[in-house]
Amino acid sequence: MRLISYSHQRQHGVGVMVNMDGFVALPLVAPELPRTMRGLLEMEGGLEKAIAAAKDKPVDLCIGEVHLDPVVTDPQAIWCLALNYKLHIEETGLTTSPKYPQIFLRMPCTQVGHGEPIVCPDPSVAVKYEYEGELAVIIGKGGRHIPVEKALDHVAGYSCYNEGSVREYQGHNRQFGLGKNFEQSGSFGPWLMTADEFGDPSKKRVITRVNGIERQNATTDLMVFDVPHLINYLSQGYYLRPGDVIVTGSPGSLPPHKGETPPANSGGVYVAGMVQMKPGDICEVEIPDLGILSNPVAADAPATYQTKLYTPSL
Amino acid sequence: MRLISYSHQRQHGVGVMVNMDGFVALPLVAPELPRTMRGLLEMEGGLEKAIAAAKDKPVDLCIGEVHLDPVVTDPQAIWCLALNYKLHIEETGLTTSPKYPQIFLRMPCTQVGHGEPIVCPDPSVAVKYEYEGELAVIIGKGGRHIPVEKALDHVAGYSCYNEGSVREYQGHNRQFGLGKNFEQSGSFGPWLMTADEFGDPSKKRVITRVNGIERQNATTDLMVFDVPHLINYLSQGYYLRPGDVIVTGSPGSLPPHKGETPPANSGGVYVAGMVQMKPGDICEVEIPDLGILSNPVAADAPATYQTKLYTPSL
Repeated sequence: MRLISYSHQRQHGVGVMVNMDGFVALPLVAPELPRTMRGLLEMEGGLEKAIAAAKDKPVDLCIGEVHLDPVVTDPQAIWCLALNYKLHIEETGLTTSPKYPQIFLRMPCTQVGHGEPIVCPDPSVAVKYEYEGELAVIIGKGGRHIPVEKALDHVAGYSCYNEGSVREYQGHNRQFGLGKNFEQSGSFGPWLMTADEFGDPSKKRVITRVNGIERQNATTDLMVFDVPHLINYLSQGYYLRPGDVIVTGSPGSLPPHKGETPPANSGGVYVAGMVQMKPGDICEVEIPDLGILSNPVAADAPATYQTKLYTPSL
Repeated sequence: MRLISYSHQRQHGVGVMVNMDGFVALPLVAPELPRTMRGLLEMEGGLEKAIAAAKDKPVDLCIGEVHLDPVVTDPQAIWCLALNYKLHIEETGLTTSPKYPQIFLRMPCTQVGHGEPIVCPDPSVAVKYEYEGELAVIIGKGGRHIPVEKALDHVAGYSCYNEGSVREYQGHNRQFGLGKNFEQSGSFGPWLMTADEFGDPSKKRVITRVNGIERQNATTDLMVFDVPHLINYLSQGYYLRPGDVIVTGSPGSLPPHKGETPPANSGGVYVAGMVQMKPGDICEVEIPDLGILSNPVAADAPATYQTKLYTPSL
């Protein structure tokens, strides 16, 4: 099954997809259930109740009629992986421990859902705004010290993630900090595909396209630390909570296509096949069988003092 | 004024301190106001309304009768500083950019309030569980591209922070990740002191004690990046939100006291005057004039597979 988080007429809800476009709105068919994905996952048997409530019901709404929110709007943690694919380690020339995963964090408020604009910084702030197409894991059952062999029992489902990064700020100092948490720089969607339907997370492919042109294409068996080992590692120190997200790292880049001139090397980490996102672009992250997360790229507001939150429209 | 976040009889609320122990409970005197510190800060004039509602009211409850929560229970971001005091840079031997602050993130669910137990990992997991006494800044008015000279207008108040760190995990790889986000490893309190009462954040002292023995004692004018510059930097990429927290970094350690034998150097970053926290210890972070954040240290549950969240009692 596939479940979405959506907003419609200023109400948030979770929907159960019936086909590629239409969904059953849980606030209509099961108003007693929690209104958020995290709420459903925190409830004992919540996901199963949601799916049962939607069974054989007609379509209430279509994706095109609503705003899609990030799959989990309010996770208590978004654990992200740096340098978790060999090719990405090689192409960046960066070093990383072979023994332990490299972990940093994103804030929920820096991400948007499928179809919503992601935001390219004003050129006076930064120009190296880059995609990272990744497999996202959504925790269902909480746990601590989770053995590798039990780890997948704690997964509710999977989704696509565009871990959009502002390279100048990421490289300002040793910790990535702000460069991985620019305003509306990432996206998470389109839906949660339940673990039973998705199958083995080590046998998938992740593809990233900008304006239809493929820029990343790799299989998840190339992860340095696979999903069960990541769950085991994080749970050594932290009680993994329902709704928590693990964003499993970016694969390497494809080389520039025939006839393309790679961008000039302006210093910092340079990858010839990496293309910067610009306002007007469309960036897609596809995991075949799961779906496509697609976002238009919008320009940020000018870099002037603002006391109201800027929300881009296209 | 000083405001607390507290829990009492399974209800959360914000209180306005009347003296060092008693407070006016806003849920009783102003039930129409938001129940959380972030809610109050997000409301136009919310903090002023809270203070006005408590004016000349008698004490409803005392701190000893309630649980104190982290000052902001649900901030949208906790921005933390690495290596923001010269002595701390020197004593660790680590390098950091002199041009840009070094930023990482903590998750709200890894912190507790004043008086609640902080949790020392099971020795089979890690033994280097260390304090970092810091000044915390709480954002009041949201903003983007905030000029340095306007930055303090965006601060609602200040508090103490114990940025408890698990050094083995912090050192596993380049990003601090999990080592700064162990379960219940940090604390934040006892209260928010409003900016008008606190005064200039560059003219304060931060003191850390373990079992009454001073281990850190430094003045905030020694920060490499001061509060206005931190606010300016973060707001270049991110809309700083009401309730967001900036934890301004750990000062260096005092040398070992006379007669003390420094712990053996077991590898990694070694600081002779740094003492590891153990179950049964009391760790205090004091900012004179603001107050003291005190936490007992409890032992974590044994490192065995658990599917329920462990909450230590003393």
